[in-house]
Amino acid sequence: MANSIYSRRLARVRALMKKKRIDALIVPSADPHLGEYVPDHWRIIRWLTGFSGSTATVVITGGFAGLWTDSRYFIQAEDQLKNSGFQLVKLRVPHTPEHIDWLQAKIKKGNTVAVDGRLISAGNMRLLEAALSSAGAKLNLKADLITPLWQERPPMPDDKAYTLPVRFSGENRASKIKRVRAKMSEMHADYQLLTAADDVMWLLNIRGKDLRYSPLLLSFAIVSSDQVLFFADEDKIPPPMKAELDKDGVVLLPYDTVSSVISHLEEGSTLLLSPSTTSAVLYRAVPKKVKITEEVSIPTRFKAIKNSTEIKNLRQVMARDGIALTKFFYWFEKSIGRETVTELSASARLEAFRQEQEEFTGASFATIAAYNEHAALPHYVPDESTDVQIGKTGIFLLDSGGQYFGGTTDITRTITLGKPDRRMKSDFTLALKGTIDLAMVRFPYGTRGYQIEVLARKALWDNGLHYGHGTGHGVGSFLNVHEGPQTIGSALSGDLKTILEPGMLISDEPAIYRQGEYGFRTENLFFCADDGETDHGRFLKFDTVTLCYIDRELIEVSLLDDRELKWLNEYHETVFRALEDSLEPEIRKWLRDKTMPVKRIK
Amino acid sequence: MANSIYSRRLARVRALMKKKRIDALIVPSADPHLGEYVPDHWRIIRWLTGFSGSTATVVITGGFAGLWTDSRYFIQAEDQLKNSGFQLVKLRVPHTPEHIDWLQAKIKKGNTVAVDGRLISAGNMRLLEAALSSAGAKLNLKADLITPLWQERPPMPDDKAYTLPVRFSGENRASKIKRVRAKMSEMHADYQLLTAADDVMWLLNIRGKDLRYSPLLLSFAIVSSDQVLFFADEDKIPPPMKAELDKDGVVLLPYDTVSSVISHLEEGSTLLLSPSTTSAVLYRAVPKKVKITEEVSIPTRFKAIKNSTEIKNLRQVMARDGIALTKFFYWFEKSIGRETVTELSASARLEAFRQEQEEFTGASFATIAAYNEHAALPHYVPDESTDVQIGKTGIFLLDSGGQYFGGTTDITRTITLGKPDRRMKSDFTLALKGTIDLAMVRFPYGTRGYQIEVLARKALWDNGLHYGHGTGHGVGSFLNVHEGPQTIGSALSGDLKTILEPGMLISDEPAIYRQGEYGFRTENLFFCADDGETDHGRFLKFDTVTLCYIDRELIEVSLLDDRELKWLNEYHETVFRALEDSLEPEIRKWLRDKTMPVKRIK
Repeated sequence: MANSIYSRRLARVRALMKKKRIDALIVPSADPHLGEYVPDHWRIIRWLTGFSGSTATVVITGGFAGLWTDSRYFIQAEDQLKNSGFQLVKLRVPHTPEHIDWLQAKIKKGNTVAVDGRLISAGNMRLLEAALSSAGAKLNLKADLITPLWQERPPMPDDKAYTLPVRFSGENRASKIKRVRAKMSEMHADYQLLTAADDVMWLLNIRGKDLRYSPLLLSFAIVSSDQVLFFADEDKIPPPMKAELDKDGVVLLPYDTVSSVISHLEEGSTLLLSPSTTSAVLYRAVPKKVKITEEVSIPTRFKAIKNSTEIKNLRQVMARDGIALTKFFYWFEKSIGRETVTELSASARLEAFRQEQEEFTGASFATIAAYNEHAALPHYVPDESTDVQIGKTGIFLLDSGGQYFGGTTDITRTITLGKPDRRMKSDFTLALKGTIDLAMVRFPYGTRGYQIEVLARKALWDNGLHYGHGTGHGVGSFLNVHEGPQTIGSALSGDLKTILEPGMLISDEPAIYRQGEYGFRTENLFFCADDGETDHGRFLKFDTVTLCYIDRELIEVSLLDDRELKWLNEYHETVFRALEDSLEPEIRKWLRDKTMPVKRIK
Repeated sequence: MANSIYSRRLARVRALMKKKRIDALIVPSADPHLGEYVPDHWRIIRWLTGFSGSTATVVITGGFAGLWTDSRYFIQAEDQLKNSGFQLVKLRVPHTPEHIDWLQAKIKKGNTVAVDGRLISAGNMRLLEAALSSAGAKLNLKADLITPLWQERPPMPDDKAYTLPVRFSGENRASKIKRVRAKMSEMHADYQLLTAADDVMWLLNIRGKDLRYSPLLLSFAIVSSDQVLFFADEDKIPPPMKAELDKDGVVLLPYDTVSSVISHLEEGSTLLLSPSTTSAVLYRAVPKKVKITEEVSIPTRFKAIKNSTEIKNLRQVMARDGIALTKFFYWFEKSIGRETVTELSASARLEAFRQEQEEFTGASFATIAAYNEHAALPHYVPDESTDVQIGKTGIFLLDSGGQYFGGTTDITRTITLGKPDRRMKSDFTLALKGTIDLAMVRFPYGTRGYQIEVLARKALWDNGLHYGHGTGHGVGSFLNVHEGPQTIGSALSGDLKTILEPGMLISDEPAIYRQGEYGFRTENLFFCADDGETDHGRFLKFDTVTLCYIDRELIEVSLLDDRELKWLNEYHETVFRALEDSLEPEIRKWLRDKTMPVKRIK
């Protein structure tokens, strides 16, 4: 039975490896921009192995073919890899290159390990090089073995890029370029290489349609003191945009020429790049006499801090998103038990409600619509094989987001269908305390995300509970739903030096998971904002901007302290006031009920 | 007036620099072990400049002589450097080599910068090299310009080393060496170089008297698979100890031969060392064909986790230390207003009370005895020029510690002399909440110190208050009072990977400072300990072991929540029960009163 389409593809890859004298081939799940989402054209691992998860690494040798992925995909991978010839290798730590350790142990002296150098970062290339050199093996970075074999490969989308008006971006292109140049000069850099497509979009105030969940045109840029070189598929740039760009000193060049332009950078100059988003091929293209400064890119740092237009726009977007969600949950509550609702049909319905909203362009990530035990999997996304009908009891977790011209949203709510038992209420409330306690924190300017994360965890920890993922991530402004450099998580992830700054948009999503039973997560977005000066300096706070009720049925009020209860009731009042005028009377009445103050039983 | 003894010394150094063609000389405050405390023999900066603070770096060029130190010493340095020819340069960030930035900006192409390579770490050498090479300057690591000039230099102490019996160490030398070797083999290391004297003391179960506050014999060691080479002044090793060491495969070699032995390590072998405690000279001595693995030393990691004997001993030590402190504070309360008590005389009296206790060998650091505004300086230590008489009003902060064979202590209490006002009580209590909240935390195994630190800060932050130092440090077992690798502080200090483990001894010292007025700090030590397994894994907690009352007069009970109040009252009951039998009736009665439950006013 190993005679599947995938095992045949594997055999052809191995034949090519033999011909090219490659002893081990690494196949990453990435495109040349090394972002979170990739277009179908670059979903090599799905074509090669049948595995459809978003993150994996394949390693093929003569006698072994393995797929490394993290725990959220273990069950799915076991299933999808059956008869493929590939076997699942479980990552101990998600998003780490553990396959390099495996290679280091297995590879023999004189062997050649190959990878398509466009698809691994300079950072990972260095780890790989160190491992192989200690084993006496060689690294070949020019091995694209897939293109010759992949017939009927999906082409890149040909949708045109478009300009994002200043009423959404809040700052024109010339001003952004000027600010980047000033920072470059402060950092003694002659060039800034931009490889992450969202950095390019932010800088040039354009958007594209190359990806399903992020409005990006896959492109590169190099900023110098007098030009911005913009590497993109010229067919996707409408002539008026080209003229506009031209006026701002932005020169459009063919997408494929970036490597060659880098290789001709002036001797003695200094190039700023980020080794985690710059591919090995581009990194290697830098001439020896060009000094490389490795740093998070300037646009990454700048775009994390939203300007007043972006803040104002997102507040409006949040109201629209809140209306869509309110309509959805109203429909959901009325429909369960009357019509067949499944995880997938609920997701579709939610998208339909968002479609009704102004300036909505699509989901910002694959909706997590999870019934009961599916909600215990933090990254569960329903598909035909897992979809289940939602019954009259249990819980339903919905983690979703929208892309609007005015901003990107990301929200999780969990609701109960029947009457929750004591443990469910306690679990839900302990995780909710985390959401609230983090939202309420006041902290001195200079504080980093990892310093305050425990506030989201403490109530759970006190009760011997724990969740295995981070608590908060940055969110783009009509860009990627996951954006750096700030995180509210461990200091081991993210950039250690990044402090929280007013204008940063961040998620707040503590959770609790009971394997095989259920999961609870309440996720809001907040802006970091100023909170006054004292004798001891400048203080900051968070302003929660997400607008959607939290299921009172799941709250055990005795577990909330007075400040938490006050926050909750004020939040619910804010939600109702912000949304009431846009709701028809029946739904308005329903929301009024959902947002009534929670009171202590004396 | 610049004709002081120090400006004459500066002139002689400059003359020697000229002769040796040195354009800039760096003089660090360190000895070849790069620890926190140095013997008088190595207090070069005090001899050269007159500045008596513990941490500074001097840079001398033809036209400039500066002393870099941190904010705790600004006033003292301004004063002591008058007419010395040296000027104070204020460090923006404590303990950072900002003088390197200065040098990088000032130094000219072709210049030579010199430093005694025994006195800077390999890590700082690398920073220095990078800065100088970018400026086109050379680095000379063999410049000891002080020895030829310093007449009447204090010799190294000649006190003998002694064995620490297993009833104190809890593990014999052979067992420790075996464990270190097992770990070395796991880390693929052939040699472990030990440069921090406390690492050597721990491994060999010996102690010495080279330093005032730490019972160390300044020595190096190299552990291999069959030997331990021990580099020490042979005159200080009593013959029976030498025989004992011999039996365990420990070979005594002359102190000065360590560099030469390192330079003869076997080609192809792997050497483990820590770049922050290994001097540039020793690092440079490593042959090119020896592979260096840079890591916190194995003994540093092992000794941080106290064994059951050390834990039991420290609990006994804490009772003794608590008795000394109780007697002190009783005496203090009775004496103020009746006899003249100054910061210095109070420090002396405290040491006398500790001297009465079994197995006490001396203070573990310079006592911080601070009256009123002096308490606003976190690192204030009284001397003849700052000493003040303690009056009948205000506050008194006492941060002190003792070295006992059974362990090292470190405790801070602040007491009020008159009736505290509202703000004082509020300040004291907010900082105390931090001490208590951190002590009460429950957390999953795998948590790092920087993740929980905010619990000590949150009550202050909520009220716009802040303190500028870390919250907790490791404490040695009859070794250094400040010990790594764990800290409860920012992720930027300490080792990012170090998790909190059962058996670690850590301080808990949130604080508040009102410049020019007062400061409050309540510091306890706690052990990290197991707190059971749940569905979500293994959990840990802290067990507070310091035994001394906290001044109830300063507590604003309305600011404590129920859990904090319960903790405080239980703590006070524990203190009283642990100490009562060792106190004479009058003091016992007094302590009973000090430890009565604090009650809410209904």
